[in-house]
Amino acid sequence: MENRIYNFSAGPAVLPEAVLKEAQENLMALPGVGMSILEISHRSKTFDDIINQAREDLVKLLDISDDYSVLFLQGGASLQFYMVPLNIMPPNNKADYIVTGAWSKKAVKEAKRVGVVNIAATAEDGNFNRIPKQEELKLDPGASFLHYTSNNTIYGTQFKTEPEAGNVTLVCDASSDILHKKIDVNKYGIIYAGAQKNMGPAGVTLVIIRNDLLERCSDDLPTMLNYKTHVDKNSMFNTPNTFGVYIIGLVAKWLLNNGGLDKMYETNKHKAALLYDCIDESEGFYKGHAEKDSRSLMNVTFNLPTEELEKKLVAEALDAGFSGLKGHRSVGGLRASIYNAFPTKGVEELVRFMKEFQAKNS
Amino acid sequence: MENRIYNFSAGPAVLPEAVLKEAQENLMALPGVGMSILEISHRSKTFDDIINQAREDLVKLLDISDDYSVLFLQGGASLQFYMVPLNIMPPNNKADYIVTGAWSKKAVKEAKRVGVVNIAATAEDGNFNRIPKQEELKLDPGASFLHYTSNNTIYGTQFKTEPEAGNVTLVCDASSDILHKKIDVNKYGIIYAGAQKNMGPAGVTLVIIRNDLLERCSDDLPTMLNYKTHVDKNSMFNTPNTFGVYIIGLVAKWLLNNGGLDKMYETNKHKAALLYDCIDESEGFYKGHAEKDSRSLMNVTFNLPTEELEKKLVAEALDAGFSGLKGHRSVGGLRASIYNAFPTKGVEELVRFMKEFQAKNS
Repeated sequence: MENRIYNFSAGPAVLPEAVLKEAQENLMALPGVGMSILEISHRSKTFDDIINQAREDLVKLLDISDDYSVLFLQGGASLQFYMVPLNIMPPNNKADYIVTGAWSKKAVKEAKRVGVVNIAATAEDGNFNRIPKQEELKLDPGASFLHYTSNNTIYGTQFKTEPEAGNVTLVCDASSDILHKKIDVNKYGIIYAGAQKNMGPAGVTLVIIRNDLLERCSDDLPTMLNYKTHVDKNSMFNTPNTFGVYIIGLVAKWLLNNGGLDKMYETNKHKAALLYDCIDESEGFYKGHAEKDSRSLMNVTFNLPTEELEKKLVAEALDAGFSGLKGHRSVGGLRASIYNAFPTKGVEELVRFMKEFQAKNS
Repeated sequence: MENRIYNFSAGPAVLPEAVLKEAQENLMALPGVGMSILEISHRSKTFDDIINQAREDLVKLLDISDDYSVLFLQGGASLQFYMVPLNIMPPNNKADYIVTGAWSKKAVKEAKRVGVVNIAATAEDGNFNRIPKQEELKLDPGASFLHYTSNNTIYGTQFKTEPEAGNVTLVCDASSDILHKKIDVNKYGIIYAGAQKNMGPAGVTLVIIRNDLLERCSDDLPTMLNYKTHVDKNSMFNTPNTFGVYIIGLVAKWLLNNGGLDKMYETNKHKAALLYDCIDESEGFYKGHAEKDSRSLMNVTFNLPTEELEKKLVAEALDAGFSGLKGHRSVGGLRASIYNAFPTKGVEELVRFMKEFQAKNS
């Protein structure tokens, strides 16, 4: 067994060891195929089975109805920031955006290239330390859609439930918390997510789109930027990221084999509670960035009394086998990203380490 | 050793066994890093080294000068079909395209969304069985660029040398023959190529762009579709396909360790000659699709006297361990794709098999 450390990276992030092991075992040749997953044609029966199985397992995990198409695209959430408004902001050419961090802001920037953006709410005044409440949202009932970011990796905040959009189409960038619990997909028009936090390696974007929205997509759009292209061709208009789709399939299977999303959610709540309890019981030594009711289950952000102590903790943690704890420069301090695949044992060990660090340094 | 077969797929395609072995060995954890390449942050020192080394090795292989930027993007050649004209068709908004197959036609379709396309030449009348000659090209000296497809996977044709574009910027889709020999990069404005034939797994697009062309890219372009974004951020404006870049790096190293592109070219010519000689010496039993002076070193396309015999050959070949020989439906017959990583031994064995098949069936 290779020497693996605890990877608290915000993404790309830790993957299930069972998934890595299976991928490793079959990397020279898929069983019975005689070729590596890296080498097989996307037009082969083998890959057809792989992409269809991955899709079916995601459908099962999230209970996605036939009203939706499930796509495996490229370009990350960053390309979706433009594709979403390009495709579905017409004909009204106006949309509502809830701004809860750097990623929402980037989404707004691209949407403004297509039409009018109404900022329904922003949490920027408090350095994005909270999720705006429903009653704060200034919604336009004529908007083409309402866009929000379900989890904010940088600030460690997360929507506990989706905002109420009324009759307006709800669009969610779920890059950093997709599959962390069951959600009611029927509430959404589009859910998109880069794979590299909870689903697989970087280079695949999952898009779940309600089929009636395809009527909004103009035939004049560039072929690769039109959702219809990818729905019509089962995500294989051009060569998809075959390896990435394969790994997503293995991760979906791993989730199904381990009790599905309800079980995953219990584990995620437990892991996050271990860390937040440690913070809350530290008598102010550790101070969470996010307001308590906005706390993320995926990214736990916190500060120490001084920057010096923060640096010391990051350095000593790294020596002890905890990697990726340095917070984003916009918040400073520390960030522990504990996505689905992050083991509970690693969180327990970090908590023990943090308690010892506090005892020695306060 | 896993049971591997000969993979004649047009792409995704065979990769060097040494590359697959190294990737497999380190898939659970990169040496000294403690995390899988699938898990490491693209902002880490480890990945920075990986992407920079991959770039440096490509620069070395192709002798790329400092006047150029080397990018690792997503979306395949299909997205480049739109990005190229979007970025560099202005200010004149007209461009010349040489049409040598299905991929050129797709490129034309996207370019027409941006401006006026002049078809400098097309080989469609002969079902794309040849490369138009320089004297046939109807070039517009005021064009923003001249676009061509260096190798045509479907039809098995290939430019022996780049067309002369005069003072017009030359743009090449080199998806299916990049790195098969040394080229003079200085002749080009942009070279782009999907990775999945000669460079690595699907999901990475290599773009080599001359830096002065960035002046044509408007600041109003969607961020992800603007070459300047990716040049400014060293291909890491957003999370790149980290695993794909890693494999491209291993392939580049493999090429360097095996004598570089001049050696590769010798091997490619040798492999292709084995097959074309077999075809030419078959007294008409095997009939090449491409005219002799347009023949591709990467994709050898040929027909048999009847469709029935073609099906029989494909089926018997598959039983004998030769996969992926069925030709594209636009041409029918057979296609042997013999990219860089395809072993000479496999070509020799196929030739032996074809000769036996002919003896038994003619």
